[in-house]
Amino acid sequence: MSKFTVAEAISGIQRINEEKTHLGRAASIIHWDEATNPKNSEKGVSTRMQTLGFLSKEVFKRTISQEMVDYLGAIEGHDAELNDKELAMYKKIKRIYEKTKSIPPEFVQEFTALTGEADTVWQKAKNNNDYAIMEPYFEKIFDFSRKMTVFYGYSEGTDSKFVHPYDALLDDYEEGMTVELLDKFFGNLRTEIVDLLKKVTAKKQPDAAFLEHNFDISKQEILADALAALVGYDHSCGQIGKTEHPFMTSPAMDDVRIAMKYIENDISSGIYSIVHESGHALYEQRMNKELCAYNLDGGASFGIHESQSRLFENCFARSREFMTVLMPVLRTLYPKEFTNVTEEQMYKAVNIAKPSLIRTEADELTYCLHICVRYDLEKAVIENKISVADLPNAWKEKMTEYLGIAPEDYKTGVLQDTHWPSGSIGYFPSYAIGSVFAAQLLHYMKKDIDVDSSIKKGDFNGINLWLDEKIRKYGEMLSPTELIKLSTGEELNSIYYVNYLKDKFTDIYEL
Amino acid sequence: MSKFTVAEAISGIQRINEEKTHLGRAASIIHWDEATNPKNSEKGVSTRMQTLGFLSKEVFKRTISQEMVDYLGAIEGHDAELNDKELAMYKKIKRIYEKTKSIPPEFVQEFTALTGEADTVWQKAKNNNDYAIMEPYFEKIFDFSRKMTVFYGYSEGTDSKFVHPYDALLDDYEEGMTVELLDKFFGNLRTEIVDLLKKVTAKKQPDAAFLEHNFDISKQEILADALAALVGYDHSCGQIGKTEHPFMTSPAMDDVRIAMKYIENDISSGIYSIVHESGHALYEQRMNKELCAYNLDGGASFGIHESQSRLFENCFARSREFMTVLMPVLRTLYPKEFTNVTEEQMYKAVNIAKPSLIRTEADELTYCLHICVRYDLEKAVIENKISVADLPNAWKEKMTEYLGIAPEDYKTGVLQDTHWPSGSIGYFPSYAIGSVFAAQLLHYMKKDIDVDSSIKKGDFNGINLWLDEKIRKYGEMLSPTELIKLSTGEELNSIYYVNYLKDKFTDIYEL
Repeated sequence: MSKFTVAEAISGIQRINEEKTHLGRAASIIHWDEATNPKNSEKGVSTRMQTLGFLSKEVFKRTISQEMVDYLGAIEGHDAELNDKELAMYKKIKRIYEKTKSIPPEFVQEFTALTGEADTVWQKAKNNNDYAIMEPYFEKIFDFSRKMTVFYGYSEGTDSKFVHPYDALLDDYEEGMTVELLDKFFGNLRTEIVDLLKKVTAKKQPDAAFLEHNFDISKQEILADALAALVGYDHSCGQIGKTEHPFMTSPAMDDVRIAMKYIENDISSGIYSIVHESGHALYEQRMNKELCAYNLDGGASFGIHESQSRLFENCFARSREFMTVLMPVLRTLYPKEFTNVTEEQMYKAVNIAKPSLIRTEADELTYCLHICVRYDLEKAVIENKISVADLPNAWKEKMTEYLGIAPEDYKTGVLQDTHWPSGSIGYFPSYAIGSVFAAQLLHYMKKDIDVDSSIKKGDFNGINLWLDEKIRKYGEMLSPTELIKLSTGEELNSIYYVNYLKDKFTDIYEL
Repeated sequence: MSKFTVAEAISGIQRINEEKTHLGRAASIIHWDEATNPKNSEKGVSTRMQTLGFLSKEVFKRTISQEMVDYLGAIEGHDAELNDKELAMYKKIKRIYEKTKSIPPEFVQEFTALTGEADTVWQKAKNNNDYAIMEPYFEKIFDFSRKMTVFYGYSEGTDSKFVHPYDALLDDYEEGMTVELLDKFFGNLRTEIVDLLKKVTAKKQPDAAFLEHNFDISKQEILADALAALVGYDHSCGQIGKTEHPFMTSPAMDDVRIAMKYIENDISSGIYSIVHESGHALYEQRMNKELCAYNLDGGASFGIHESQSRLFENCFARSREFMTVLMPVLRTLYPKEFTNVTEEQMYKAVNIAKPSLIRTEADELTYCLHICVRYDLEKAVIENKISVADLPNAWKEKMTEYLGIAPEDYKTGVLQDTHWPSGSIGYFPSYAIGSVFAAQLLHYMKKDIDVDSSIKKGDFNGINLWLDEKIRKYGEMLSPTELIKLSTGEELNSIYYVNYLKDKFTDIYEL
């Protein structure tokens, strides 16, 4: 007999959830302060990171506390008495508990402190093109990640919960995703994209010289505010700040923050960053508020979250129709630079596809190839097939193989991303899943509403209502697989993405 | 028999201390973000304040947890086995425990959430000169404070731990301070200052027209950075930001932050704010680092902390000698405005004494009279002798009685201070104690080192070393009474302050 009734267990879990929400919110604001406040004392980084480590540990302690185990025990076998939110909450916690119960809280605290520090070292390493100062951190981070796979239940024996150690890490970002599935998924995508890219590179590139200007940063900030509002971001429940690497963080539904990076001579980076992050932010701002009490107020997975940002950034804001809305805004802020640029010129310029070195600046066509490089490499390091010391060279080889070009230095190569310094091994595949699912969503959205003419009018209301209904309202109630099935009627299917790319680039490049 | 050895109890307490440090640091950074980041979403204020409330509750829970009680029990009767830091830590915790053990954690959480929200409402109330929206918050805050005195041990019966309910609140800021002592202290000070002020106001005021300019804010920021560095503030272990009401907060010794307010047409406000806050910051930055592990790395009391800021702001930076250092800096930044101003002119201008409405802008002579107004009023509200609704009128009456002038509106009267909105009832007397102790410290410092010529040279090294030795190195090892005795050889004595004021203003006004 459990010492708690089911109702007591549910309200006990909700009380713990509330504490986790507060601790998570504190961490989110400290992270925001660290990333967006350039005046933060460098000497204080390490103490602040220790505090972030402490907060993660406190969240984690509550996830697998004896109290939680008792509550789960009280509910076990009584699933039928739960309502749908309670059931989803129960399943989520049980899943996390089962996965993480073997991790010592100190391990989490040390890992968070390590990655916090590594993140700061990374900024320096990248600025100074210095792989040597980063290497020991990467070494430790991959080491921690390998240990993590064991805590998660991977072993070399037959009782392993995961076939491949990397599967254990992938599962953090995409529930149930495996190397076996991804090897096929990426293999197929890569073939199609590499083929398309070859055709594209044989053609003459559209003119984009009109984008080669210095665009006043303070006006770029106005532009970002305007574009965010245009696609539906609620400024009264958030803020837009500045940082080194753009991100969205959500301390609360009424406090959804976007950190931007503005580059004076690259206005399209600013345009597409803000729309991208707004896609993420809309997911958070327009979630079902009732889910908070059940700790289900997050995205279904990293890939699903990314599908929302990709949908807005690429499918919407890089569409021909969007140019009808974008150009008047640009002509208002930068009349000299844009008055004589046509919508068609702009459309082609922001869709130029060609091999490049930096993932975050890659075009829609080549983007997934950058993900393939990272997928292959981190899988290989986790498998101990290559060492951290080998990474820079392996990076060059993979880039050459998939994109036909390779970086001359570290900062445009292996040091470009924040993910490894922040310990997010297994994260990258979610970006590709996001792109693929975005195209699938778009396909089905177009069956229900006139997406093209909505965008052309700059009216995102119908689009947002559709996404509220199909995606956002569920929060974490459904697994990514369930959500994909429910919203589109089929499983994740890369055909829509491949067709989308073929149609778009065949048209633009007259293939 | 206790279940812990003394050594186990000490290390157990230290572990709890570390957790409290992290929680306190998180709260400090969130508070900083709230106060210095003007973009923070207004709709998110309430959720953020709930998180601050949660963090206070978590700190407080640890202070009086059963675990802590067990550790204290294990140490009881074994004081002799402790080293001096352990003993001070034990005494501090025991004292807080005894004082606060009756407060329900939910009470703390509610109070913190209330004051967090009240603080935001206050900003609006002040801007719109609207007492009506503030009144219900003041009502609740004084109500909470009255309840707090009961939790602290005040009662109307003979077993009361405090003679007066206000004593229970005072003790939060100045251990052992009472209404009985303060009535005498303020009575005496008030008589002397009112008398001196009468003589001063009968004289012609020095010329200060040369300060009536608009001083570019970005240069004022440079000025603040320079003056902070001049008096010894270590920029590499902190930062200077902007806010509505200047403050210092210390997430860690290597992260001591100053929030400034710059007023374009009032450069002396900027000058004296930064030196004031630097005095606070130096106390935190130059503390003995070893004290952190014992949770003794704070100021001995609010009054002692304030003595450090007053010493730098008034005794040092408003001295004739400081003008020799200040003028070249001002002439560098604002040549047009300051090239023809003499040191003597500036000295007299920054020491003009005359009745005014705003405490934070009051001169050195009248400042304590503003404190007398607040002391009388908050004591009276706690005693239920006047109601919150009466406060605006009572404010006018007291101002007229002590300073001979009264505000026409709320924003320059009862709504001017952050203390009541933030629930700090009993805090104000510490400001006067700070001024009085600063003069006492200066008296004794001058016996050991040549303060005047050090300031004239702009060399604060000797002064800082003296303060390190006499004050800063002790952190919270000593009670304010013990520290005053040890550093100056006598108890708090207002004669030094009265003499200091008499000498200074007799000279300036040729009385």
